[in-house]
Amino acid sequence: MSQDTSEAEHRGLICEFLGRFYDRGWVAGTGGGICTTLPDQTILMAPSGVHKERVAPADLFVVDRRGAVVRPPQNRDLRPSECSGIFCAVMERRNAGSVMHSHALSAVLAADLALDTDRLIIRELEMLKGIRGCRNTDVHALPVIDNRPYEPELVGQIERVLDAPDFAAASCILVRDHGAYLWGADLWEAKRHAEVYHFLFEAVTARGRLR
Amino acid sequence: MSQDTSEAEHRGLICEFLGRFYDRGWVAGTGGGICTTLPDQTILMAPSGVHKERVAPADLFVVDRRGAVVRPPQNRDLRPSECSGIFCAVMERRNAGSVMHSHALSAVLAADLALDTDRLIIRELEMLKGIRGCRNTDVHALPVIDNRPYEPELVGQIERVLDAPDFAAASCILVRDHGAYLWGADLWEAKRHAEVYHFLFEAVTARGRLR
Amino acid sequence: MSQDTSEAEHRGLICEFLGRFYDRGWVAGTGGGICTTLPDQTILMAPSGVHKERVAPADLFVVDRRGAVVRPPQNRDLRPSECSGIFCAVMERRNAGSVMHSHALSAVLAADLALDTDRLIIRELEMLKGIRGCRNTDVHALPVIDNRPYEPELVGQIERVLDAPDFAAASCILVRDHGAYLWGADLWEAKRHAEVYHFLFEAVTARGRLR
Amino acid sequence: MSQDTSEAEHRGLICEFLGRFYDRGWVAGTGGGICTTLPDQTILMAPSGVHKERVAPADLFVVDRRGAVVRPPQNRDLRPSECSGIFCAVMERRNAGSVMHSHALSAVLAADLALDTDRLIIRELEMLKGIRGCRNTDVHALPVIDNRPYEPELVGQIERVLDAPDFAAASCILVRDHGAYLWGADLWEAKRHAEVYHFLFEAVTARGRLR
Repeated sequence: MSQDTSEAEHRGLICEFLGRFYDRGWVAGTGGGICTTLPDQTILMAPSGVHKERVAPADLFVVDRRGAVVRPPQNRDLRPSECSGIFCAVMERRNAGSVMHSHALSAVLAADLALDTDRLIIRELEMLKGIRGCRNTDVHALPVIDNRPYEPELVGQIERVLDAPDFAAASCILVRDHGAYLWGADLWEAKRHAEVYHFLFEAVTARGRLR
Repeated sequence: MSQDTSEAEHRGLICEFLGRFYDRGWVAGTGGGICTTLPDQTILMAPSGVHKERVAPADLFVVDRRGAVVRPPQNRDLRPSECSGIFCAVMERRNAGSVMHSHALSAVLAADLALDTDRLIIRELEMLKGIRGCRNTDVHALPVIDNRPYEPELVGQIERVLDAPDFAAASCILVRDHGAYLWGADLWEAKRHAEVYHFLFEAVTARGRLR
Repeated sequence: MSQDTSEAEHRGLICEFLGRFYDRGWVAGTGGGICTTLPDQTILMAPSGVHKERVAPADLFVVDRRGAVVRPPQNRDLRPSECSGIFCAVMERRNAGSVMHSHALSAVLAADLALDTDRLIIRELEMLKGIRGCRNTDVHALPVIDNRPYEPELVGQIERVLDAPDFAAASCILVRDHGAYLWGADLWEAKRHAEVYHFLFEAVTARGRLR
Repeated sequence: MSQDTSEAEHRGLICEFLGRFYDRGWVAGTGGGICTTLPDQTILMAPSGVHKERVAPADLFVVDRRGAVVRPPQNRDLRPSECSGIFCAVMERRNAGSVMHSHALSAVLAADLALDTDRLIIRELEMLKGIRGCRNTDVHALPVIDNRPYEPELVGQIERVLDAPDFAAASCILVRDHGAYLWGADLWEAKRHAEVYHFLFEAVTARGRLR
C-alpha cells in the first residue's frame, strides 16, 4: 500500500474488508472493528455498535493519534469505536498502520487452550510464515489477557503485553472469552494477518481436540 | 429503525434477512420465520412452508396483534406462519417489535446441553454484551422448553417462561430438538440478537465438546 | 410446481439447484446428480462427470422412463448420468417426480453410525416434519445399503429397500461410504428434502459425537 | 480442455479458481498457488505472496519447463511463485498439465493422522473414484513428507515420492504442518482433484475423530 493510496480508497477497502470479515463470522452481532492510518497520520476508524457488513465509506470516523474525533461522519447517530484507546496503543507501541478487532469463536476457543497461563504457544505450522518476521520453525507465543467489563479497561493489560519482550514477535493479542486484536504495517498486512491468525486459531483448536 | 420506516422498507428487509438466515442454515428446508411490527401496529409476517430464501416482499402477510390476517398476499397459495400465536405472545409480553424463529442445528445442540434442566446457562463470553441489557459478566439463563407436535401447542409453555422472573433478561427461548425463538425491539435488534444468540449456541456447544 | 411449468423453467431450476448444492459441498468433484419429470413424462437429467456448478440448461439429457436417451444435449462430449437406472427405479417405485444424488460428507458420516445394521434411526428432531408424511414424534428409519464398484450395481439393493414396508416413510436411501439418494414429488420437494435430510445427517452425526 | 484453449482463457480460469479456493480457505493469508501448461508448453503461474482472491489475469507469470521466467507480468512488484521448482518437478515426473498448492487446514489435519509413518491411507470412500485411475475399492496411499523452512528445500523429498512405485496412483502429496500439492492432466482435472482430495482430507479427519 503506497503512501499515496487515497483516503477514498482506504474508506472503500475498510468497508470491503468488514464485509469479508462478517461473512466469516469474525464481526457478527455488530461486534469487532478496524482502523487504518491515513497519509496525514490521522486514523480512519469504523463506528461502534452497527451491523459491520453495512458500514458505508461515509460512515467512518477520522480520529487523531490519541483517538480524539477530528472528522465525524455526517450521520450523527454513529458513535466512534469503543476500541479506540486500544487501537491507538497498538499503533503507537508497535508502529502498526492498521489494527483489526475480531469476535471470532475460533479466537475464544484458542484462548481457552491457555487456561492456566498467560500465553498461547503456536508451533509446527507453515502458516506462521504469513506473520511478519516469523519462520515456520518458530515457537510463536501470543499473549492472552483477561477480559474486562468495558473495552477501555483492557488498555493497561494491552500496553504491558505490547511492551513485553516475550511477545515481541506477536502481531496479535488474545482476550479471553472475547476475541483478538491483531495488526499490520498497513491495511493489506492487517488483512493477511487476520486470515493467518484465524487459520492458526482454528488449527490449534482442532489439534487440541484431536490430539 | 425510526417510526417512519415505510412498510415497503420493512418488506424488503424481511426478505433480505431471510436470505441471510438461509445462507447460514437457520431457516433451511422451508423452516423458520420472522415478523415485525408496522407503524400502524399491525404485524408483517413471512408465510409458512415455503423456501425462505425465495420469499418476495409481496409474499408477506399483514396480521393484527392477535395473529388474525388483515391483508393476505395476492398469491392465494401462501399460508400464514404457524408461529403466528407464538410471535404474538412474545410481542405482547416482551414488548418486542420483531421476532425470529430459527431451526439452526446449533440451537438444537445448545438445548441438548440442558438435558435434565429447564435452562441453558451462558457465561464468560463478551458476546453477551450484544444482548439488550446484558453485561459480559452476567450469568445469562435461557429457558429451554419441550417440543410439541404442533407449534401452537408451544404457546402455553412460552407464555410461562416469558413471564418467569428467572428469564427476564433473556431475549430468546430454546425449544428442545427444534430451534429457538428470539426477538428485539425492532428488525435490526432482532437481526443483531439472531447473530449474537447463534454465536452463543455455537460457543457453548464447542466448549461443551472441548472441556 | 404446476403441470404447466415449462421445460425451460425446469432446465433453469436444475442448474440453479446444482449451483446451490455445489456451494454446500453436496456435489463436489463432479459427483452427484439430479433429475426431474417433464410434463410429457420424459425425464430431464444432469450429465455425468462434469463440474456440477457449471452445468448449463442446454447440457441436460432428456431420457424416457427406463433411462434411454430421447434427446441428448448438443454438446456430444457429455454423457448421461450414471445414476440413470437408480433414478428411474426411484421414480417408478415411489412415484417420485424428482430425484437427487448427494456426495455430502455428512451423508457418509451419518451412514457410518449404522455400522452393524441396515438402517439409520432418526428421532427427536422437529426437522422430521420437513419430510412428506412425517411428524416430529416419528421414529424415522432410513435404509443404509452397501456401496458397489459401479452405480448400476446398486439398483438391486435399491429396489429391495424401496419395496420394504419398514422404509415406506423414507424419502432417502443412504449408501455407505458414498452418499445418499433422495427424492420428492417434484423439484421443489426434492430441494426441500435435500435440505432437510442433510440437516438430519449433520444433526445425528453431531449428536453421535457429543452424546 | 482442448489444445486450443487460448492463453486468455487459461488466465481467466486460474483467477476464477483462485477465488473459489480462497472462499474455501485453501489459499488464505496469501498462501497457496496454481499453475497450468500453455499450448506452447510454457507454464502460466500465479505470483507469490499476494492476496490470492485478487490475482488478475495480467498478474500471472509465464515460465519455462525449468521455472525460469519467460514473460513476467507488467507489475514489477510481483514475484514468481516460490513453489516454482516443485510445480516443475511434478509436471515433469507425472506428466501433469496443472498443479495446485493448498494451505487448507484439512490437509494439515489429515497429515497429522500419519504421525509415525510416511503415508496416509484412504479407503472405503466412493469419492476415490474422482481421482484419475482410481476405483472406490482401492486402498489409496498418499505420501506424507516433512516440512522444511523454505519451499525449494522440499524438492528432493518430492522427487523421491513422485518416483516411488508405492505412490504411483497418487495425484497428491501431503506436506506435514503445511498443506498439499496436487495435480491433474489439465486445469479442469486439477480443480476436480482439488475438490476430491479436500473432501477426502475432511472425511479421514472426521472419521479419525469419531471412530
